[in-house]
Amino acid sequence: MTDFAPLNSNVGEIETIIRNWEHAIQTGDMAAIIERHADDIVMYDVPEPLQSKGIEAYRRTWDLFFHFGAPGPGVFVIEDLEISAGEDVAFAFGLLRIGGSEEPVCRLTLGLQKRAGQWVISHEHHSGPHALEPSKTA
Amino acid sequence: MTDFAPLNSNVGEIETIIRNWEHAIQTGDMAAIIERHADDIVMYDVPEPLQSKGIEAYRRTWDLFFHFGAPGPGVFVIEDLEISAGEDVAFAFGLLRIGGSEEPVCRLTLGLQKRAGQWVISHEHHSGPHALEPSKTA
Repeated sequence: MTDFAPLNSNVGEIETIIRNWEHAIQTGDMAAIIERHADDIVMYDVPEPLQSKGIEAYRRTWDLFFHFGAPGPGVFVIEDLEISAGEDVAFAFGLLRIGGSEEPVCRLTLGLQKRAGQWVISHEHHSGPHALEPSKTA
Repeated sequence: MTDFAPLNSNVGEIETIIRNWEHAIQTGDMAAIIERHADDIVMYDVPEPLQSKGIEAYRRTWDLFFHFGAPGPGVFVIEDLEISAGEDVAFAFGLLRIGGSEEPVCRLTLGLQKRAGQWVISHEHHSGPHALEPSKTA
């Protein structure tokens, strides 16, 4: 159907993993949030630190997230999700509505690998753009 | 040599593309900066806007970048680059030293696809983490 159909053979499976993860965030289910993540995940989150390496550090980024916003259907919503999937490597990206925002305010990129026959998320990058005006408060 | 050697058959070629792109940024060579990018690239940049879609909008993000910092060897340096590559989909990520900074201050994630036999960058995500303290200036 498209020029790149061979890239997309695993798209459905990966979309299910991502939507299940999104649902786990909305329900605050930490076990489900980290269920399909690699032990060696490298996370770039919206707030500091610059990076968080490993599944325990990744879990703490969600502890921080829920410190600022309670679980709920609007707490973390992925829009315009696009997935590029090969046989054993994939990436996905989209925009994020956060904490009940009506419009997207952040961006999300995921990297996935098929390891031992199972897709896992091994990299995440969440961010909010910075305003163009130089900060007056250093 | 590793558990995931099959993922890495294209790593060398992709690393060359990324390092050539980094060099093009350091020398301010716009034609080389966009040479291996997809026409439909989706860019999430450090400053606003939330996203830039298409190669012309992508080019403008570099016009903005060079408005704030002149080309030079320290203007954009990728550290800790990690690449996961399949046969036709790949992603890469690393930390960025920007504008002569001695330590990394930003994060970079790239998504690549092999199209018509050639690897192209079809997604980029650049960001700087936000400070944890809530802004006093709204």
